[in-house]
Amino acid sequence: MQPYWGHHFYLPNQQHPLAQAVNESLEQARESVSFLVGCDAFEVVFTGSGTEANNLAILGIAQDQSPGHILVAAIEHDSVISAVESLVKRGWQVESIPCDQFGRVDADSVAQRLRDETVLVCVQLANPVMGTVQPIRQIADVCHKRGVRLHCDATQAFGKIAVDAVTLGVDTMAMSGHKFYGPRGSGALYLRGGLELSPIAYGEMREMGLRPGPENVPAWVGMGVAASLVSRCIDEVEASFCELRERFVNGLHSSLEGVVFLCPEDVLALPNTLCVQLPAVASKVQELARQLVVRSAETDAPPDEMNRVLTAAGRSPGQIARTLQISLGWTTSREQIDRAVDMLADACDSANL
Amino acid sequence: MQPYWGHHFYLPNQQHPLAQAVNESLEQARESVSFLVGCDAFEVVFTGSGTEANNLAILGIAQDQSPGHILVAAIEHDSVISAVESLVKRGWQVESIPCDQFGRVDADSVAQRLRDETVLVCVQLANPVMGTVQPIRQIADVCHKRGVRLHCDATQAFGKIAVDAVTLGVDTMAMSGHKFYGPRGSGALYLRGGLELSPIAYGEMREMGLRPGPENVPAWVGMGVAASLVSRCIDEVEASFCELRERFVNGLHSSLEGVVFLCPEDVLALPNTLCVQLPAVASKVQELARQLVVRSAETDAPPDEMNRVLTAAGRSPGQIARTLQISLGWTTSREQIDRAVDMLADACDSANL
Repeated sequence: MQPYWGHHFYLPNQQHPLAQAVNESLEQARESVSFLVGCDAFEVVFTGSGTEANNLAILGIAQDQSPGHILVAAIEHDSVISAVESLVKRGWQVESIPCDQFGRVDADSVAQRLRDETVLVCVQLANPVMGTVQPIRQIADVCHKRGVRLHCDATQAFGKIAVDAVTLGVDTMAMSGHKFYGPRGSGALYLRGGLELSPIAYGEMREMGLRPGPENVPAWVGMGVAASLVSRCIDEVEASFCELRERFVNGLHSSLEGVVFLCPEDVLALPNTLCVQLPAVASKVQELARQLVVRSAETDAPPDEMNRVLTAAGRSPGQIARTLQISLGWTTSREQIDRAVDMLADACDSANL
Repeated sequence: MQPYWGHHFYLPNQQHPLAQAVNESLEQARESVSFLVGCDAFEVVFTGSGTEANNLAILGIAQDQSPGHILVAAIEHDSVISAVESLVKRGWQVESIPCDQFGRVDADSVAQRLRDETVLVCVQLANPVMGTVQPIRQIADVCHKRGVRLHCDATQAFGKIAVDAVTLGVDTMAMSGHKFYGPRGSGALYLRGGLELSPIAYGEMREMGLRPGPENVPAWVGMGVAASLVSRCIDEVEASFCELRERFVNGLHSSLEGVVFLCPEDVLALPNTLCVQLPAVASKVQELARQLVVRSAETDAPPDEMNRVLTAAGRSPGQIARTLQISLGWTTSREQIDRAVDMLADACDSANL
């Protein structure tokens, strides 16, 4: 990214010979992102974040049509749920799709809720709390049979599992650069070729007329490099995550009694995302095992994402209070896994003294 | 910015001791920006660009109220004009405020256009093409007498002249980091304490509930450092710009006949922005003096910003075709000014051969 803060400060469309080089770098980044997504470069719209990509996909389709019906999974990210809910005051009908105890959204339950007025269905690829991977292909088939567009928030999946937009059959898909070791301030929306979308902000339009303002070249170049890296090593990463996950699950089971992993092995889930119910209060464990960066549900109202997702999966407040979420990263080692298991076991013991 | 891409990757509100340090850095950046703007830190809302800040100020006020009347200067930036015009299809009435031949918007002509239904007036602080600085204080007084909010796009002014939001009396004011040597992807909106505004995108809300998505800490820290630098040296910068401008004006007048500077000395204008009518076709001069990065109007339809602004100032198509815009930067030297004068004079001669 460094050169694009300084020497290559030009914008891609400026009247200067050096601007051409900047333009080429930006289009190279677009190629790298499209390769990761499994689509054509012209189907990639750069944004400032995954949140912006979700807002663009949802508000952009609603922008220029009369109010209709939207289906949104109960366990979606805030940026999806809030964007959809903002349309209620403009006359749109919003309906929630439930999930099962493992956080799975069923294609049949989507099919049952589709109406003639349904314009859009929003189901994420993978849940950030439970890790659950959704049957997007089946949901896409159900949607397309009725001519309904499917938006898929895939921000949580990139860098953890292989993703292919065409195989998934989605119409729009959001991604966030910093979720796969790219820089903050970078994101993108996959928009299937031929589909229409309206911008949601205005100015000097870039990114195929869908985003105003100067291109954030450094951020998008950085995202492109991260995308190349993910494309190159995702198989190894996934295998390594699976091994580490198994080590963690086995380790915790043998060190502690009464541990429940919320996604059992036969449920399709991200291999790096672990949601575990402990035999102790999670926030207390978190406090006692300070060296571990883990997440527990915030108990204060309004409910946070973790609370919301676990409640949708049928967990009681008491169960949620004992649930911890742990994510593995690319640099997580076996030794760290073992230490994490020890720390958690010790913290649980201390918490219950 | 470097530490915030790596080690200090935490988000300000995360449950981790190191997140506190990130939060402090972000609030330090907000202090630096507020010092530059002449306001309190809680009146600064960070955004991803000046374009986003303009959209937020305009669409955010329209979001939760029934359609009214908006006044917008004819020479505003695209992001202001297009955001305002997007409201027409939602029932808003939009009216343009003309300018005089020097690009000046008169407070009286604003006063004459204010109606009972007027909700917002948009007038920029300084024009990016002609450099004209507007009588914002008088326009603010006229607006406030009628209880109307004034939004001021000040993106072009920071780093060139001293700006003080309180003295100007504006209600909202947009700025862009990369316009004063901060990074791309950084911007801010000044929102006068006590004023209400609605967000225009949704998700995990940050920035006082006005912007969703994770904070772009590296970009905003970079913008803060740039803001401190501007605060420290703006008087010297302004004095230096004035000297260089005089040198350029005198130099070009003595090397070429038939040169007209569009903002004469008695018109308040940015000291670094020069708009000059040449005795030759500007695009040809631009082509011949390739080493100079200058701007000429794009003749293709739709008219570009330069075309639009110069037309609003009463310039004919023939005059516009001979007009060049030149900007001085913090590192521009006397020698560069002299070379630029020589290059332009030579290019004009060659263009007319």
